[in-house]
Amino acid sequence: LDAKALGEAWERQKRMTKPAGALGMLEIISAQLCGLSRQCPPPIPEPAAVAVFAGDHGVHAQGVTSWPQEVTAQMVLNFLAGGAVVNAFASQVGAEVCVVDVGVVGELPHRGGLVPRKVRHGTADITQGPAMTRDEAVRAIEVGVETARDLVAAGNKALLTGEMGIANTTVSAALIAVYTGADPAEVTGRGTGVNDETYSRKIEVVQAVLERHQPDPADPIGVLAAIGGLEHAAMVGLLLGAASLRTPVILDGVSAGAAALVARAIAPEVLAACVAGHRSAEPGHVAALTKLGLRPLIDLDLRLGEGTGALLALPVVQSAARAMHEVATFDAAGVTEKS
Amino acid sequence: LDAKALGEAWERQKRMTKPAGALGMLEIISAQLCGLSRQCPPPIPEPAAVAVFAGDHGVHAQGVTSWPQEVTAQMVLNFLAGGAVVNAFASQVGAEVCVVDVGVVGELPHRGGLVPRKVRHGTADITQGPAMTRDEAVRAIEVGVETARDLVAAGNKALLTGEMGIANTTVSAALIAVYTGADPAEVTGRGTGVNDETYSRKIEVVQAVLERHQPDPADPIGVLAAIGGLEHAAMVGLLLGAASLRTPVILDGVSAGAAALVARAIAPEVLAACVAGHRSAEPGHVAALTKLGLRPLIDLDLRLGEGTGALLALPVVQSAARAMHEVATFDAAGVTEKS
Repeated sequence: LDAKALGEAWERQKRMTKPAGALGMLEIISAQLCGLSRQCPPPIPEPAAVAVFAGDHGVHAQGVTSWPQEVTAQMVLNFLAGGAVVNAFASQVGAEVCVVDVGVVGELPHRGGLVPRKVRHGTADITQGPAMTRDEAVRAIEVGVETARDLVAAGNKALLTGEMGIANTTVSAALIAVYTGADPAEVTGRGTGVNDETYSRKIEVVQAVLERHQPDPADPIGVLAAIGGLEHAAMVGLLLGAASLRTPVILDGVSAGAAALVARAIAPEVLAACVAGHRSAEPGHVAALTKLGLRPLIDLDLRLGEGTGALLALPVVQSAARAMHEVATFDAAGVTEKS
Repeated sequence: LDAKALGEAWERQKRMTKPAGALGMLEIISAQLCGLSRQCPPPIPEPAAVAVFAGDHGVHAQGVTSWPQEVTAQMVLNFLAGGAVVNAFASQVGAEVCVVDVGVVGELPHRGGLVPRKVRHGTADITQGPAMTRDEAVRAIEVGVETARDLVAAGNKALLTGEMGIANTTVSAALIAVYTGADPAEVTGRGTGVNDETYSRKIEVVQAVLERHQPDPADPIGVLAAIGGLEHAAMVGLLLGAASLRTPVILDGVSAGAAALVARAIAPEVLAACVAGHRSAEPGHVAALTKLGLRPLIDLDLRLGEGTGALLALPVVQSAARAMHEVATFDAAGVTEKS
């Protein structure tokens, strides 16, 4: 973050016609946007686009969810048809939905709006071996970097993370356990709402995966290759790409939190571009946000993913930036300051 | 709330392409909107308007704030010029700002956008006597009812509360103490950010006011007349008017919370129309929301008033309603349900 623009931001906020500090967290976000863009006031982050990366997970075979694997592909078609929650929320807040196939198992039809970037047909079962090769992990990251570059080149001034992948909260929990050091039982959640039996199995699977691979947090590409997901890797790339373009990126839920931990291990500066859109009901997400030092803007028990939580936060981030542009100073408005 | 539409809402949410319950608090809001409108899906609450009621307070003479009283009128002019935070946020989320003078001390110029409904030139000092007469309290409530009627007649499908009145957090604290039974020291906050000395005086003033008037919570008009504010009374009317028109109303901060407590004492059904937009940093607001049984949608340490917190919540409420309209069912989208 640029120190000069940060200083200007705090100085300007003091002169705006409102009590000092009265916008709370929004003043922190505004200052971050100034520091990131090196401008005060900062660009208003619109238009914005949510990148929804879809991938499948070999660990689905271990019975960690009650949803069939084909739902990943079916939901991708639902996104393209505009019938999912991410579409409704994006429509409401004026964001574009960009759907990227980075690793769905089946073949998806060529259809407008779908960006075909399949690195492989789903990951391998991480209870049996590595999820993917290091080369595949790097290629999935590159898909995310390219997505960020393309969306920013198209004029977007904010990016949002989204994902779809049946069983991906299992992978997110494993990644978060690696980067927070927390016990798998603490960071594994019920995802889409599994019953007690499946939940116990899910925790055991995460424990087994960590024991088998002993992932080294200092080798983030190795961690992704061993236990990651293709959509997680793509989100890592999106964050790296957005940060390198000084474009703010709003994180969605637990999978985005896991990706942010990995991205930070690659390049700590990435966090300067990150805003935590919401806190999901998944326990691992709280652990991830705490480790990242990010405070979520929305906290309404959402646990859907797709980018829905990030989309609800978008107007908050835009409002914070717009206030810097449009709110008069005490002098200009002829408003007396407090004594 | 209409039981049939409520039942339809929960039934429909189960068939939407998302895990059951995955939208958390937004599913509760959607159901409320269905029950309120007697329609499933409910009308999407746009366009929306924030009604900003401005009034002055005789208790300002007791040194409860470090801001001069003329700032109320100056900020009204700032609202009309589009230079306040409420204007920036309203512009971002696509809401109209309606500024109503219900009791500013000075004479305001006739200017486009200002609705002149002055009931009196500020309240009297409530440490010395009643704030206003019962008749004036009723007239201020009527200003709010009429504002709701006019804004809904103009096509608005959601209303938001806003207010401006230097010293009004002192009055809000007194009202909240009456309706929650809490100790004044617990529900009095620092408002715009007063220092320790002023804060102590503010608590003493609230205590003195309650001792002097001994307000009877069962007589809400009497409570408003004794210790209320003109903008509080107008907000009471706005809530009553919105509820009677089955139009949702998003509450802003501590003053709206105080008004909602009074409105509920007049007509308990009013709460069916109320959504708590945010939780402010004022301690009295938490007490009010708890008493009302409302969970705030935004919680970001805002303490500005004007309607700013309610405006940030508007896209959340709109997104909740839009999801009911646009999200496909499992059958329609060809998505397999969980086993």
